[in-house]
Amino acid sequence: MAASIKDVAKEAGVSIATVSRVLNDINVVNEETKKKVQEAIKKLQYRPNIVARSLKTQKTSTIGIIIPDISSQFYPEIVRGAEDVANIYNYNIILCNTDLDTEKEMEYLRVLREKMVEGILYMSSSLQPKIFNLIDELQIPTVLIENRDEDKKYPSVTIDNEAGAFDAVNYLIKKGNKKIAYIGNKDNGSNVTYLRYEGYKRALKENNMELDDKVVYSGGLKVEDGYEGIIHIIEENKIDSVFCASDECAIGAINALRERNIKVPEDVDVMGFNDIYEASIFYPKITTIAQPMYDMGSVGMRLLIKIINKQKVEETNFELPYQLIERDSCK
Amino acid sequence: MAASIKDVAKEAGVSIATVSRVLNDINVVNEETKKKVQEAIKKLQYRPNIVARSLKTQKTSTIGIIIPDISSQFYPEIVRGAEDVANIYNYNIILCNTDLDTEKEMEYLRVLREKMVEGILYMSSSLQPKIFNLIDELQIPTVLIENRDEDKKYPSVTIDNEAGAFDAVNYLIKKGNKKIAYIGNKDNGSNVTYLRYEGYKRALKENNMELDDKVVYSGGLKVEDGYEGIIHIIEENKIDSVFCASDECAIGAINALRERNIKVPEDVDVMGFNDIYEASIFYPKITTIAQPMYDMGSVGMRLLIKIINKQKVEETNFELPYQLIERDSCK
Repeated sequence: MAASIKDVAKEAGVSIATVSRVLNDINVVNEETKKKVQEAIKKLQYRPNIVARSLKTQKTSTIGIIIPDISSQFYPEIVRGAEDVANIYNYNIILCNTDLDTEKEMEYLRVLREKMVEGILYMSSSLQPKIFNLIDELQIPTVLIENRDEDKKYPSVTIDNEAGAFDAVNYLIKKGNKKIAYIGNKDNGSNVTYLRYEGYKRALKENNMELDDKVVYSGGLKVEDGYEGIIHIIEENKIDSVFCASDECAIGAINALRERNIKVPEDVDVMGFNDIYEASIFYPKITTIAQPMYDMGSVGMRLLIKIINKQKVEETNFELPYQLIERDSCK
Repeated sequence: MAASIKDVAKEAGVSIATVSRVLNDINVVNEETKKKVQEAIKKLQYRPNIVARSLKTQKTSTIGIIIPDISSQFYPEIVRGAEDVANIYNYNIILCNTDLDTEKEMEYLRVLREKMVEGILYMSSSLQPKIFNLIDELQIPTVLIENRDEDKKYPSVTIDNEAGAFDAVNYLIKKGNKKIAYIGNKDNGSNVTYLRYEGYKRALKENNMELDDKVVYSGGLKVEDGYEGIIHIIEENKIDSVFCASDECAIGAINALRERNIKVPEDVDVMGFNDIYEASIFYPKITTIAQPMYDMGSVGMRLLIKIINKQKVEETNFELPYQLIERDSCK
């Protein structure tokens, strides 16, 4: 059975109030008494009950992380970065999977309020207005990761998705490609991946290439979306390359092309986005735009902890550098 | 600012004690008063402070999950299964990444005690005696996932790793293979993957095949271990197949063989273990022993919640069925 504050007081021969004063570092105890209490704490391996203490200090040292899906290929690395920083500053995290379901996102925000978390890291590729309303209402420091609001009212850590996609498509054009397909989301203005379609369009435009809706496939970002998307596109169109808004899409597209004896990259260049782990071990290894996922989590958590502790924050909207990683899926 | 219990009492025109009685469902309030309080709660959108309440009831509705690494390829799916069940029963989870560092594992156990979690899901491919001592000392219900203690003293959810490996190697033998290599851990008795080496040895023995240490590579379970392992083995030995103790190893081995123009499965059969997501999208798709990862998390969490709530539990050591998945990396 773990030692209680009573046991410590008894061992040190002082009152419970005195032990409490030592624990809370309130300077009314003389040095000798303090030492006695500290020795008793050490001897009994006493660890104060944080829940009880949090009621007094209003500090729970807990941060909520809201993510779409921890079993996806993208988010675990962000969570790991966040958790490592939380660890350094002695915060624990409560993890909530939302499946991008807005009702679930709202329910979890309320649950985190009940649990008295001190802050929230919020990841969602799609942010609805009512989420922002609830965040305002709850008055808990919140940092957005991966996505941000248009007005940059909320602290955030993102990359420039539009510019990343622009660079990717420009790269394909410089390789001599003339007909570049797009697979990914293109419809939802509140979804961050939409910006990748914007970047695709701008690259075509600046290179005087025509946008052809017949080689644009708007669906999800999963392996099966890439698989179905490329089949749909090549059925009636001839392409020499495809920009996929996720590495999963790129993997699906490559697998479908391989089944049809179309060689990557000899016949078709395939470009991904994100640089999930699979991109580096797949055959062929996938050329992609790397998001610094671990850094997004760690920078976001550091920012959040600064805000929680009312430390000076110079910058609240971080746009981290992305990187074009050349591998084997493009000529 | 969120409404307090005081605001609710004022709105309903009753005392704080009455509101508290309604909240805790203590049946001393008449129906009319109860209704008034409930309406006030609804109107003010009051949500009771769980931390304060947990001090009285000793219930925090929080469960700790200790895992080696959430950014690995194996654990996220288990955590997702656990979280989905926790969600159904209104428990939240606190996630702790340990990197299989025993000191970190012990520190997190203590932190979870401080946070008054009601139970712990414990995942570690390696379990040291001092971990068990600490679990005993903390007196928090704990369920082991993936691994278990020899005496089955602690509740656990695992698969039969030895039998799974035996079936895998038997499968390779039935395909006509005569020289089967092994890549994976073979040394640590407290590490669950060790049992896969035991299964490998038994399959050879029962088929009257000799164990040849020169085609056994003992290292880690990562992609690079598989890559290095197979290079090491084929340098001076001729093999027709390899059983890898993880899919990551299998991926590394296949990539190394491909670079040397050795075809999988035409020249060498490669078998994995676990059935991580990559195994199903890799080229070639990997034949493997599937652990039911989502189920391990959900069954483990259900068991833990039953134990926490002192419900009747028929079975405390679950051994879930594994499955041999035939894909394209074996002839």
